[in-house]
Amino acid sequence: MVQHASLPRNETGIETALGVLKQQFGERFQTGQSIREQHGHTTTWIENQPPDGVVFVASAQEVSDVVQVCAAHEVPVIAYGTGTSLEGHVNAPAGGICVDLSQMDRVVEVNAGDLDCRVQPGVTRKALNTHLRDQGLFFPIDPGADASLGGMAATRASGTNAVRYGTMKDNVLAVEVVMADGRIIRTGTRARKSSAGYDLTRLLVGSEGTLGIITEITLKLQGIPEAISSASCSFPTVDAACQTVMAVIQYGLPVARIELLDATTVSAVNAYSKLDLPETPLLLLEFHGTEAGVVEQAEIFGALAEDHGGQGYVVTTTTEERNRLWQARHDAYWAMLHYRPGAKAIATDVCVPISRLAECVVASQEKAHALGLVAPIVGHAGDGNFHVSLLVDMEDGDELDKASGFVSWLNSVAIAMDGTCTGEHGIGQGKRKYLQEELGGATGVMSAIKSALDPKNIMNPGKIL
Amino acid sequence: MVQHASLPRNETGIETALGVLKQQFGERFQTGQSIREQHGHTTTWIENQPPDGVVFVASAQEVSDVVQVCAAHEVPVIAYGTGTSLEGHVNAPAGGICVDLSQMDRVVEVNAGDLDCRVQPGVTRKALNTHLRDQGLFFPIDPGADASLGGMAATRASGTNAVRYGTMKDNVLAVEVVMADGRIIRTGTRARKSSAGYDLTRLLVGSEGTLGIITEITLKLQGIPEAISSASCSFPTVDAACQTVMAVIQYGLPVARIELLDATTVSAVNAYSKLDLPETPLLLLEFHGTEAGVVEQAEIFGALAEDHGGQGYVVTTTTEERNRLWQARHDAYWAMLHYRPGAKAIATDVCVPISRLAECVVASQEKAHALGLVAPIVGHAGDGNFHVSLLVDMEDGDELDKASGFVSWLNSVAIAMDGTCTGEHGIGQGKRKYLQEELGGATGVMSAIKSALDPKNIMNPGKIL
Repeated sequence: MVQHASLPRNETGIETALGVLKQQFGERFQTGQSIREQHGHTTTWIENQPPDGVVFVASAQEVSDVVQVCAAHEVPVIAYGTGTSLEGHVNAPAGGICVDLSQMDRVVEVNAGDLDCRVQPGVTRKALNTHLRDQGLFFPIDPGADASLGGMAATRASGTNAVRYGTMKDNVLAVEVVMADGRIIRTGTRARKSSAGYDLTRLLVGSEGTLGIITEITLKLQGIPEAISSASCSFPTVDAACQTVMAVIQYGLPVARIELLDATTVSAVNAYSKLDLPETPLLLLEFHGTEAGVVEQAEIFGALAEDHGGQGYVVTTTTEERNRLWQARHDAYWAMLHYRPGAKAIATDVCVPISRLAECVVASQEKAHALGLVAPIVGHAGDGNFHVSLLVDMEDGDELDKASGFVSWLNSVAIAMDGTCTGEHGIGQGKRKYLQEELGGATGVMSAIKSALDPKNIMNPGKIL
Repeated sequence: MVQHASLPRNETGIETALGVLKQQFGERFQTGQSIREQHGHTTTWIENQPPDGVVFVASAQEVSDVVQVCAAHEVPVIAYGTGTSLEGHVNAPAGGICVDLSQMDRVVEVNAGDLDCRVQPGVTRKALNTHLRDQGLFFPIDPGADASLGGMAATRASGTNAVRYGTMKDNVLAVEVVMADGRIIRTGTRARKSSAGYDLTRLLVGSEGTLGIITEITLKLQGIPEAISSASCSFPTVDAACQTVMAVIQYGLPVARIELLDATTVSAVNAYSKLDLPETPLLLLEFHGTEAGVVEQAEIFGALAEDHGGQGYVVTTTTEERNRLWQARHDAYWAMLHYRPGAKAIATDVCVPISRLAECVVASQEKAHALGLVAPIVGHAGDGNFHVSLLVDMEDGDELDKASGFVSWLNSVAIAMDGTCTGEHGIGQGKRKYLQEELGGATGVMSAIKSALDPKNIMNPGKIL
């Protein structure tokens, strides 16, 4: 387990804030051990650092009230949605108050004619899609977990659909935010594009709660496509699979999803889900378009795959068959954990230019093999983003050191390829040193912005910078 | 003509900087009247406020050198590309030094396999597309003018293709920037997506030279589509044309361009370009895709247009015919100026949610009519963005007052519709008061960022804030 250093605690301020908040929020302010630990929930890889208290807020004004109390007493404030982040984002290394936004879960309005909506930050992506279905609309960003939209915005999340629909950066039109002094601002309008001043929307999206707390989000929506089809294709080598992905992107084929599973992952899924997929690298795809369009896309993909030795290419349009094909992907996380009983998964998140994808994935496999690590890979291959899940016995110090070394090595390799250490998980506590390696002097500019907007460093301290 | 207030000049500092720069740059530093006025070039609507000197720089390091001289003596620095901006962006209301980036015009690298490239800021969009053509690639953003890519990034430009390909915000992967103290930073990598810290790329894109000077841009590119077809269709009313656009967007039809010309513009173009288009509102379209895909898109559009009374629908795939169809759009600006000889054009730039487009365009026509203004309209209708070009006799004070009143009225109407006063032109000098009206308290956050990153207020002062 990685322990991130605790930061100095302002005991007097925290004590005072706890008293004030108890008075203001009554039963909606909790300080019990288990609730606090649950709100410091991260991954098994990063040690839990619980907050001192948790407020269950119901409105932007209440968030502002909490922030004002914390500002007055110089106490950290940490926003919490569903606790599905992976880099220690909700930890409280200096203690402080957790603002639980899960009860702010209202879809405020859906403007079907404009393909947009306004939601509170505690609405999860699945809840939003359930809400939208009757109107023929959907919100495309799918990071796997049923994360809250506030948290997804705060970490600039993406996932399997990003190759077609972009990331949260591309799908948030505006946010309402409580700043470090309690001011409530709105960063934009419902206009599809704007050149009106600094892009505060994009500055707040991905700021991981370190500049402000998002209390409402205006999102772009998509019409549910006329036709959806899914496909799967096996490849003799991971290089061949990646070369196919590169060809797809260079061709400009508008795939909605193109996911890579390496042979180890396929083996794990076969065992877990009782499938009999060939235990070689697999690509899973989804095509969105008109009836004729998805047929054409599937044909073009078939030809590109064949050029690279693809085998067992299957395409299907029925929902049932689609779900069966994608089961391997949906079950991958659990299958991996079963693949090595007792082990925990440590996720990496590099993203490289697509031309370097094959090289980076192959090098990762070789490095993991050389270190004796069990390291299945799944990737949002169309973006050049892939996750090596290191299955580690957390009690084995030597293995943990090797895993830690692997993470460092991979992040450096990706950065050297003009890529990033994090395609979608964020920096949090876990990747701060790599941010410096990746962007150098630009982090000084980030620090200047942080100091200007949060001079007391109360907003989620110890994250990003 | 609108005169924007001059700001206090630091005469001593300017005098010193002029001397230092003359010594450092020799013939590449110019202070002649005509060069200075040319570099304060804006539009006929905003008064020219020339800088005190112009440096023709050749590298990021030279930009840094200039900025350091100006920082030392607290002298304004204004970046200049091609001088095609519309809101007084290159004016020097407090005097200062213009950094002319037009000689930094090198395409540094093209990574065809990754669909990206790195360019210096003085490369124009047409020059880039000429450079790319042999590789089957293109850069889609087309604001009309052959603007520099540095200037396009700085103003978050877009134009006719944005409905399909997005704006500069969506197509810049990273920038190299000289900050107000002369530091050179790089804001990102060539990864397609990233969650690595604050999104400085998007903060700098659209910052209009007020936070730093962009010295290199990493851009996304597109493959030239397998097939391109164009179409035009006339409508009985501007409302019918806008309703069709709304139907297209709500259908999810991936049009590459969908431009609106109102009846006045069509009349102007008929006269100027010797065409005989029906003098009713016109939509011009472009479809990008596979051979079969563009045929299908054109059919779907045809059906939607027919539902709204569209007439004379023409589709063509040959380049020659496409150019002929689009001639009306390409000539629109010149045709407008000829439509009222002696008049100058004042451009508005509102952008509203697509469901309000028809209402906003119709209200604009009615308001202009009531005021007795000649006001042809062209619009990037798919984005809800349209330009009313007020053709004004600049010598007629009463008419100028009416035009000025119209601009205010329209901006307020768009903002009340949850839209923006500027879809793509930027704030500059001209729209500062509307930025306040549009975003309220958020401008305070912008000011805090500006003060933190440019404490001496030397970077393009008097713009945006």
